[in-house]
Amino acid sequence: MATLEPVDRNYAERVRQSFAGQGVMAFIGAELTALQPGYCEIQLRFRPELSQQDGFFHAGIISTIADSAAGYAGYTLMPADSRVLTVEYKMNLLSPARGEHLIARGQVIKNGRTLVIAKADVGIVRDGAETPCATLLQTLISLAPPPSR
Amino acid sequence: MATLEPVDRNYAERVRQSFAGQGVMAFIGAELTALQPGYCEIQLRFRPELSQQDGFFHAGIISTIADSAAGYAGYTLMPADSRVLTVEYKMNLLSPARGEHLIARGQVIKNGRTLVIAKADVGIVRDGAETPCATLLQTLISLAPPPSR
Amino acid sequence: MATLEPVDRNYAERVRQSFAGQGVMAFIGAELTALQPGYCEIQLRFRPELSQQDGFFHAGIISTIADSAAGYAGYTLMPADSRVLTVEYKMNLLSPARGEHLIARGQVIKNGRTLVIAKADVGIVRDGAETPCATLLQTLISLAPPPSR
Amino acid sequence: MATLEPVDRNYAERVRQSFAGQGVMAFIGAELTALQPGYCEIQLRFRPELSQQDGFFHAGIISTIADSAAGYAGYTLMPADSRVLTVEYKMNLLSPARGEHLIARGQVIKNGRTLVIAKADVGIVRDGAETPCATLLQTLISLAPPPSR
Repeated sequence: MATLEPVDRNYAERVRQSFAGQGVMAFIGAELTALQPGYCEIQLRFRPELSQQDGFFHAGIISTIADSAAGYAGYTLMPADSRVLTVEYKMNLLSPARGEHLIARGQVIKNGRTLVIAKADVGIVRDGAETPCATLLQTLISLAPPPSR
Repeated sequence: MATLEPVDRNYAERVRQSFAGQGVMAFIGAELTALQPGYCEIQLRFRPELSQQDGFFHAGIISTIADSAAGYAGYTLMPADSRVLTVEYKMNLLSPARGEHLIARGQVIKNGRTLVIAKADVGIVRDGAETPCATLLQTLISLAPPPSR
Repeated sequence: MATLEPVDRNYAERVRQSFAGQGVMAFIGAELTALQPGYCEIQLRFRPELSQQDGFFHAGIISTIADSAAGYAGYTLMPADSRVLTVEYKMNLLSPARGEHLIARGQVIKNGRTLVIAKADVGIVRDGAETPCATLLQTLISLAPPPSR
Repeated sequence: MATLEPVDRNYAERVRQSFAGQGVMAFIGAELTALQPGYCEIQLRFRPELSQQDGFFHAGIISTIADSAAGYAGYTLMPADSRVLTVEYKMNLLSPARGEHLIARGQVIKNGRTLVIAKADVGIVRDGAETPCATLLQTLISLAPPPSR
């Protein structure tokens, strides 16, 4: 884990600004609750508007915060003027996501120059106890900034 | 594709009822626009509330409708009293999802007794032209109904 | 599929040379049986040395030819002096791979500048009839040539 | 990790017997080097016959031992008369697999009744130093024994 040194000292501000720019995070009520070099945690309270047909969190909503948690874990390590895009991810659901809130913990696995591999482990909290409910494995790409006009 | 005969004649009603029970579909504004044995199409209009930091559809939102489109494609072929759960999926993003609306087309690849493998191809429509923007590959499990109370 | 024009007229020779350089292909007995821009087909005869515990083709062996078929499909479209590496893939097994030989058909889904998304569909031939047995979804990266010494 | 109690006391013998029945393991020279409930380690020496075009281990060969390591990690926890099949896996390559030998460490993430989710981390050893080179995330299915004749 020796490579998780941020090249941008202001990574936290940059990530928080990007998070604030994701309309979907405010819409579903997700909060960025922890941030370190190579690590990002996002939490989300349950609401019926986020459910699938059995009343659990919908897999797509789980992946929404897991994708962002892993993506921002990667983005903490990218240069100041870079952009980050998700190339792909795979998510396994480990148990029904029935409970009060989700915690997605994103972590960088491999910090490459162009590609970053990250993962997110998601827990569901019910009656105060947390159970693993999903795990996501992701590829990110670091892009140069768009040309200014 | 000879195996895509539904065992439940009322599959369409059953799927539509389940879709109506997914709180998240109404919340984001997704519509079930086509349904056939082994096939399901879901569309979604863009709103800033569904965006990531660059103003495109967030990958998690794309996967929300792609997961449901593929999952309901599989559910059309399951028995009348069964339930469907997503085991896992993998999604590749093919191009930035910038446009007016998304179309996710779910399709069964392999209709097994317990497990169903399905995929969804997602297009983004911009100025009337559709471009592929994501592809999802998924494993579903067909569960017996929960015991009645 | 308009983008599948090769930039290197000698793509076929280049791909065949790379295939010949994969020690594992000769070792397991795989043959490159078709090649077009954005498409590559590899076949493999069954031998007990390629089996898992039930006497079917081992999933890893299936993925060995599927990964190469998809990877070479992508490599047909890359520049003359480029190299190709697999970033990641996901494979679903659709039915037991019991039979005389495998056919893996690789195809480009998205031909990006740096990243190429490809897939491979694998069939198993038994008593002359082919059945789908696996599908693979892959991300490739196109690399500039290594600096000469 | 409290659920990783084997239901079959003779799990080790059963797994080793299944491993010995995989023709491909002897063919490529793979060895089962560690086994515990929910854990399995497989090692593989490099030979030019296992290479891709740049002389590294071929991704398919890496996945061959990673799939078996994760699969046997899962199989340690299954009933005495069960069979195990891989449903799907996804593998990310983290760095070029250039070196003397591979170590694949399979581990159960979720031990369900029908489905087991497992992972494998693969390291490449070069000049005595190990570097992570791949990570695999897998779904297994536990099957009842085939009917006797």
